[in-house]
Amino acid sequence: ICCAGTMSPNNSPKLMDLLDDTVPGIGTYEDFNTIDWVREKSKDRDRHREITNKSKQSTVALLFSISDAFSGWLLMLLIGLMSGALAGGIDIAAHWMTDLKEGVCLNGLWFNHEHCCWASNETTFQERDKCPQWKSWAELMVGVSEGPGLYVVNYFMYMCWALLFAFLAVILVRAFAPYACGSGIPEIKTVLSGFIIRGYLGKWTLIIKTITLVLAVSSGLSLGKEGPLVHVACCCANILCHFFTKYRRNEAKRREVLSAASAVGVSVAFGAPIGGVLFSLEEVSYYFPLKTLWRSFFAALVAAFTLRSINPFGNSRLVLFYVEFHTPWHLLELIPFVLLGIFGGLWGAFFIRANIAWCRLRKNTCLGHYPVLEVVVVTLLTAFLAFPIEYTRMSSSELISELFNDCGLLDSSKLCGYTSNSGSASGSVNATAANGLGARLAGPDLYTAMWQLALALLFIPSMAVGAIAGRLLGVCMEQLAIRHHERDIFRGWCSPGADCITPGLYAMVGAAACLGGVTRMTVSLVVIMFELTGGLEYIVPLMAAAMTSKWVADALGRESIYEAHIRLNGYPFLEAKEEFRHKTLATDVMRPRRGDPLLSVLTESGMTVEEVERLIADTTYSGFPVVISQQSPRLVGFVLRRDLVISLENARRNQEGVVSMSPILFTECDPPMSPSAPPAVKLRSILDLSPFTVTVHTPMEIVVDIFRKLGLRQCLVIQNGRLLGIITKKDILKHMAQMANRDPDSILFN
Amino acid sequence: ICCAGTMSPNNSPKLMDLLDDTVPGIGTYEDFNTIDWVREKSKDRDRHREITNKSKQSTVALLFSISDAFSGWLLMLLIGLMSGALAGGIDIAAHWMTDLKEGVCLNGLWFNHEHCCWASNETTFQERDKCPQWKSWAELMVGVSEGPGLYVVNYFMYMCWALLFAFLAVILVRAFAPYACGSGIPEIKTVLSGFIIRGYLGKWTLIIKTITLVLAVSSGLSLGKEGPLVHVACCCANILCHFFTKYRRNEAKRREVLSAASAVGVSVAFGAPIGGVLFSLEEVSYYFPLKTLWRSFFAALVAAFTLRSINPFGNSRLVLFYVEFHTPWHLLELIPFVLLGIFGGLWGAFFIRANIAWCRLRKNTCLGHYPVLEVVVVTLLTAFLAFPIEYTRMSSSELISELFNDCGLLDSSKLCGYTSNSGSASGSVNATAANGLGARLAGPDLYTAMWQLALALLFIPSMAVGAIAGRLLGVCMEQLAIRHHERDIFRGWCSPGADCITPGLYAMVGAAACLGGVTRMTVSLVVIMFELTGGLEYIVPLMAAAMTSKWVADALGRESIYEAHIRLNGYPFLEAKEEFRHKTLATDVMRPRRGDPLLSVLTESGMTVEEVERLIADTTYSGFPVVISQQSPRLVGFVLRRDLVISLENARRNQEGVVSMSPILFTECDPPMSPSAPPAVKLRSILDLSPFTVTVHTPMEIVVDIFRKLGLRQCLVIQNGRLLGIITKKDILKHMAQMANRDPDSILFN
Repeated sequence: ICCAGTMSPNNSPKLMDLLDDTVPGIGTYEDFNTIDWVREKSKDRDRHREITNKSKQSTVALLFSISDAFSGWLLMLLIGLMSGALAGGIDIAAHWMTDLKEGVCLNGLWFNHEHCCWASNETTFQERDKCPQWKSWAELMVGVSEGPGLYVVNYFMYMCWALLFAFLAVILVRAFAPYACGSGIPEIKTVLSGFIIRGYLGKWTLIIKTITLVLAVSSGLSLGKEGPLVHVACCCANILCHFFTKYRRNEAKRREVLSAASAVGVSVAFGAPIGGVLFSLEEVSYYFPLKTLWRSFFAALVAAFTLRSINPFGNSRLVLFYVEFHTPWHLLELIPFVLLGIFGGLWGAFFIRANIAWCRLRKNTCLGHYPVLEVVVVTLLTAFLAFPIEYTRMSSSELISELFNDCGLLDSSKLCGYTSNSGSASGSVNATAANGLGARLAGPDLYTAMWQLALALLFIPSMAVGAIAGRLLGVCMEQLAIRHHERDIFRGWCSPGADCITPGLYAMVGAAACLGGVTRMTVSLVVIMFELTGGLEYIVPLMAAAMTSKWVADALGRESIYEAHIRLNGYPFLEAKEEFRHKTLATDVMRPRRGDPLLSVLTESGMTVEEVERLIADTTYSGFPVVISQQSPRLVGFVLRRDLVISLENARRNQEGVVSMSPILFTECDPPMSPSAPPAVKLRSILDLSPFTVTVHTPMEIVVDIFRKLGLRQCLVIQNGRLLGIITKKDILKHMAQMANRDPDSILFN
Repeated sequence: ICCAGTMSPNNSPKLMDLLDDTVPGIGTYEDFNTIDWVREKSKDRDRHREITNKSKQSTVALLFSISDAFSGWLLMLLIGLMSGALAGGIDIAAHWMTDLKEGVCLNGLWFNHEHCCWASNETTFQERDKCPQWKSWAELMVGVSEGPGLYVVNYFMYMCWALLFAFLAVILVRAFAPYACGSGIPEIKTVLSGFIIRGYLGKWTLIIKTITLVLAVSSGLSLGKEGPLVHVACCCANILCHFFTKYRRNEAKRREVLSAASAVGVSVAFGAPIGGVLFSLEEVSYYFPLKTLWRSFFAALVAAFTLRSINPFGNSRLVLFYVEFHTPWHLLELIPFVLLGIFGGLWGAFFIRANIAWCRLRKNTCLGHYPVLEVVVVTLLTAFLAFPIEYTRMSSSELISELFNDCGLLDSSKLCGYTSNSGSASGSVNATAANGLGARLAGPDLYTAMWQLALALLFIPSMAVGAIAGRLLGVCMEQLAIRHHERDIFRGWCSPGADCITPGLYAMVGAAACLGGVTRMTVSLVVIMFELTGGLEYIVPLMAAAMTSKWVADALGRESIYEAHIRLNGYPFLEAKEEFRHKTLATDVMRPRRGDPLLSVLTESGMTVEEVERLIADTTYSGFPVVISQQSPRLVGFVLRRDLVISLENARRNQEGVVSMSPILFTECDPPMSPSAPPAVKLRSILDLSPFTVTVHTPMEIVVDIFRKLGLRQCLVIQNGRLLGIITKKDILKHMAQMANRDPDSILFN
C-alpha cells in the first residue's frame, strides 16, 4: 500500500519538520559557505506555523506567540538605541582626540577645544576658538607662546599623537580582530547575500572596530565614516540577535535584521534615516521584504534620535554638516553642477582604480607582510603634510561642515573672508558697496583659503574632495557673477543685500558627485543630501550632479568600489543590479562538462554505506542528486554533503548493527530484504524532495534570475526527465567572470 | 547527426528569436489575461542584445543604440511634464468650478474667488475674501445683498451646480469611458502585476478621467485625489509608451514605466516625490528593479517641479497644505498621537467594510442598474448637508489645508478664533493675558468652528476625517494645557509668546492615521507627511500614529482598501506582502485532481493537425505541456494555446499541402516519413523548451514564492521525471481563497 502513487500531505514525511529534531548539526552551514535561502525561509515558516497552532491551545502559548510577533520590533528598538549611542560616543571621542593632537584644556582634560572655550568667559563670539584655558602643547611644555619654536613643537607633537593613534589602531586590529579592518561594506553585502563569515560580526570585531575607528579618525587618516558605522551597526544587530531565538537560529531572518542595521549605520553616519533605508535597499541588501522596510525605518529613526539626544556636535543636529540654504538657484547654474558631476564621475572611476591597484599590489607583493609599517608611514606622511594647511589639519567632517556652510555676517572662517567681513574699509570696497554688492567681493582671506583648499585637494580623498572642488567652483562662480553682474547672462542673479549664489551648495553638490562616482548610489545619495538640506528646492542640482557622475563613472567602469572589492576578494556575490546579457544556455554552464566524468549521483536504493562514504571521500561536491537508478537517471531529490556526513557518522555511532555493507535507503518505504541482511540506514529525512530544476535549453539569463530571486545554492539540469548535470552559484559566477573576460578562478568560495 | 545528445548554443533553434519574426500575433496576449514575465523579459534582453551587437557595426546603429538607452529617460521626462501639467490644470479648474457654485467674478469669469479679490484693490488683508467684484449668485440674480432670501437662493444655486457637475461626470463616464470610474488603484495594482485590461489606460480614459475628476471634485463629492491622479499619470505613461518601440512592444518594460508613473501620480497629489516613489515601491508595484527606482524618482521630481511652476495654489508650493511648524512636541503628547492612531485604525477598518458592503450591495441588487440616479441622489444629499456648514462647503483639500494650518496673528479663519485674535478685549482675557498665555485661550469663534467640525466629521470621508478628529483633539489638548499650565504634568509646555502645542500637527497626525488605516501604507505615508512638513522633528509623532493605526486596522482585517477591491472584483492578483502560511504541497493544488480525467498533453510527434485541433476545441486551457509520448510522459516543453491556434491557422492558410492528417512535430529534426505522407507542420519554434517545474513534494509556500518572484503564469508538476500535473496562477489564487475560507470561485480571470 505504501509507495502507491500520489500521497496525501498528512502521511508523507516532511523534510523541514525533521531537520531540527534529528541529528544536531543538520541544517547548519560551514564557515565560508553560502546559505540556502529557500530552506531557511521554510524553516522560519514552519516555526511560525507551529507557534500559531500552539497559540490556540493555551494562554501562555498565546502570550508567547504575541511576544514572538513583537520581538522583531523590540530587536529593532535595541539596535537603534545601541547603534545611536555608539555613534554618539565615537563622535565625541574622535572630536576630543583630534583636538588632543593640538593641545589640552586646563579646565578639564575631558573638554575638547570648542567646549573648553565655551566654558570660558573671557572669549568673545568673534574669536570663539581662542581662550586662555586651551593650551597648545608648545605653550604647555616649552612655555613659548609665540614664534617659530611654538610652531615646530606643535608640529612635532601633532605628528607624535597621530603616529601613536595609528599605531595603536593597527596593533589592536592585528592582535584581536582581523575582521575589523577595512570599510566593511563589501563583506556586509556578501554576508547579506547569504554568505557565512563567522566572527565577522562578533563582539570582538565590534569592540575593536569602535576603538580603532576613533583612533583612525583622530590620527588624521582620511576615511569615510559611513562604512565603519554600518559595520558597527551590523555587529550590534548580530550580537543582539543572540537574545532572540527567532533570529539566532535562522540565517535568513538574521539577514533581514542585518539589512535594517545597515540602514541604521547610514542613518547615524549622515543623520539621514530615510536615506539610510534607501541605501540599504539600493546598495547593500539582497533580500529586502517590505516588512523589513518598515522596521528598518523604525530602527533608523530610533538611532537618529538617540544620536541627537546625545548631541555630540552641540548643535541639536544629527550631523556636523547640517545646512540651511536660502538663496534660490538659477537655471544657468546647472552647467557648473553638471561639471561637478563630470568631475565626480571621473574622480570616482580614478579612485576605484587606484584603490584596487593598491590593494592588488599589497596582496601580491611583499608589501602585504608589513601592514603596521604601511600604516605608520602613511600616517606620518599624512600628518606631515596635513599640519601646515588649516583645512587638512581639521577632521574631515569638520572640513566638510565648513565647506557646506553658508557664510553669515559673523562667520570667522577664512572661507567667509569677503571684503565686508574682513573689516578693512578700503576705498574700492566702498565704491562697490554703494550698489550693495560689495559685501560679497572676495577679500585676501578668501584668496588664502582658496589656495589652501586647492592644495588640500591633492591628498584628501572621498567626500571632502568633492566638497572642496565644489566650494572652489562655487566661489569662482560667485565672484564671476558679482564682478559681471551687469552682463545679460547674470542679470537678476544678484540683488542688494542677498547672496548672488551659494558656494556652500556647490560644495554639497560636489560632495554628492564624488560620493556618487565612488559608490554609484543614486536615489539614496540624493535623499541623504535632501535630508541634510531639508528642502526640495535643492534636489534638482543634486540630482543633475548625481546623474552625470554616475553616467560618467559607469562609462569608465561598471563597478562601484564595493563591487570591485567583492571581486578582488573573490566572494561569491551575485550582483542583482547588472543583468546577465549573454546568450548562453544552462547546458553550457552545467557540470559535468563534455568529456568530464559522469555526474556523481546517489541512487535512492541499492547503495551501501561504504559506497556512499567512498563517494564522499573521493569528491568535494557540497551535495549530491539522488536518482532512481544509474540506468534511469530520473531525479528523486538532492542531499547536502554536510547532512549526509553527519547522518552517516550518527548512524555508525548510534544505530545498532550498521556496518559498511548496510544499504542506504532514500525511498519512502523499505524494499523487501532478507532477514540476515544488515539493517538499512534510512535517510529520506535529510533528502530535499523538491530540488530546483531547469532544462538544458533554459537560457542562462533566466537561470541567473532564478538564482538571484530565490537565493539558490544549486540547481539541477534536466533533459526530457533525465538528470544531466548541476549548476551551482559558483559555476554561475565563474561563467559570468569568463564571459566578461576575467579570470574564472578568481571566485574563491562556494 | 541531428538530435544527437547535447546541443551547442549556436545551432539550436531559439524560441525567443523567432517569436517576433514568424506569424503575427504570436507572443501577444488576449484581453483579461496574465502576461508571462519571464518571456517578456527574455524578449527585451534579446532585443537589447541585438542592438548592442549591431552597434559595433556602424555609426548609425551606434547612435540608435545610444538613443535607445536614453529613451527611458526621455520617456520619464515626458511623463513627468505631462502629468505635472495635467495635475496643475486639474487643480486650477477644480478650484474655479468649486467657487463657481457660490458665485462669479465680475472682473472676469475665469477668476476664482481668491484671484478675483486679489485683483481688487478695495480689499484689506484682513478681509481678503470679501470684495465687491465677487458676486454670489443671489446678488447677481435677484439683486438681494442681505437677508434670508440671499441665503436660500445661494443654497439653491449651490445645489443646482453640484447636481449639474455630478450629472455631467456620470454621463461622460458611462457614455465614453466606463474604465474611468472609481479610484483606479486596485486595477493599476492588478495591471502592474501582469494583468491585461485593454483600454484601461487609453486616451479616452485619460480625457474622461481628467474631466470627470474636475467635475466630481467641484460637485463636492468627497473623494481622494491621489487615486485618480495615479490613474491619470498611468494613462499618460501608457499613451507616451506608444512612441517608443522598446516600451510599446514589451509588456514587462511597459509595466516598469507604469510603476514610475504611479510614483508620479502620488508625487503630484501630495507634492511628495520621495514619498511617491516609496508608495509605488511599497503599495502598487509588483516588479520594481532598482533601475526603475532611480527613473521613477526622476519622473516624480520633474512632475513636482512642473506642477510647482504652474503654481496652481499661488503659494509657490506643490500642495495646498504645505505647512511649517515651529513648536517642538512633548513626550507626553505621544499619548494623544497614539489615540489618534487607534482612531485612524478603527476608522480605516470600518471604512473598508462599509465601502465593500456598499459595493457588494450595488453589485448584487438592482441598485447597480441605476448608477446615474445613485450619483445624483448622493450629490444632492451631500450638497444639501454641506452648504450650511462652512467646512463642508469648501473643497476637501482646502479644508485639510485649513486644518493643518498653524494659526498666525493675522489669520482670519474661525479655527484661529482665539481670544487675542477675536478682537474683543474682555476683562477675563486681560487677566490671563498678564502672564502671556491668554492669547491662545479659545474664543467664541473657535467654539463655533469646533462644533461645525464635529458635525462635518459625520459625513466627510478619508483624510479629512482624520484631520478634523486630529484638530479637535489638538484644540482640546491646547486648551487643557493652557488652563492647567501650572500643573506638574503640563509644566514647561507653555512659555509666554509661544504656542503651547500645535493643533495643526494633531490634524496632520490624524490625517496620516486615517489614511494609514484605509490604505495600510507605512513608510511611504510617513515620508509623504515628512515631505509636507519638511522637518525630521515631526516624524516620531507621525510614525507612532501610523504604526498604531496599522496594527489596530490589521487586527480587524488584514486587507487594505485596494486589496479588498481587488478581491471583490476577482482580479488575479498574487499579493506579495502576505506570506502563504499553510502546509499544503504542490500535489494538493495541481490539476488534474484525483478522479479527474488525465492531463491534456500534446506529444512531441505522432499527433495530427486534426487531433490537436480537436484537443483545442474540447478544452479551455491556455496552454498544453508537450511530452515524449503518452506512455512515457516525460516533459519536453510547453506551448501556449494562443500561439498554437495562430500557428495552426497560419499553416492551414499559408503552408502548402497541410491537411487534417498532417503530422505535427515539436521535435528538433524530422522522423523518417514516407514520401506520400502529407507535409509535417513544424512547431518547435513556438515551443517553450524551458518551462518551470516543481515536484509533487514541493511545499506550496515555495511554489507561491516562485510564482511571485518570477512572475509565472503556470508551472508543471513532476514526480521522478514524469509529468503529473500543472499549477496555474488561478489555481494558486483559488487554493489561497479556499484556505482562507473564502469562495474559490470569486477568482474570475486567468
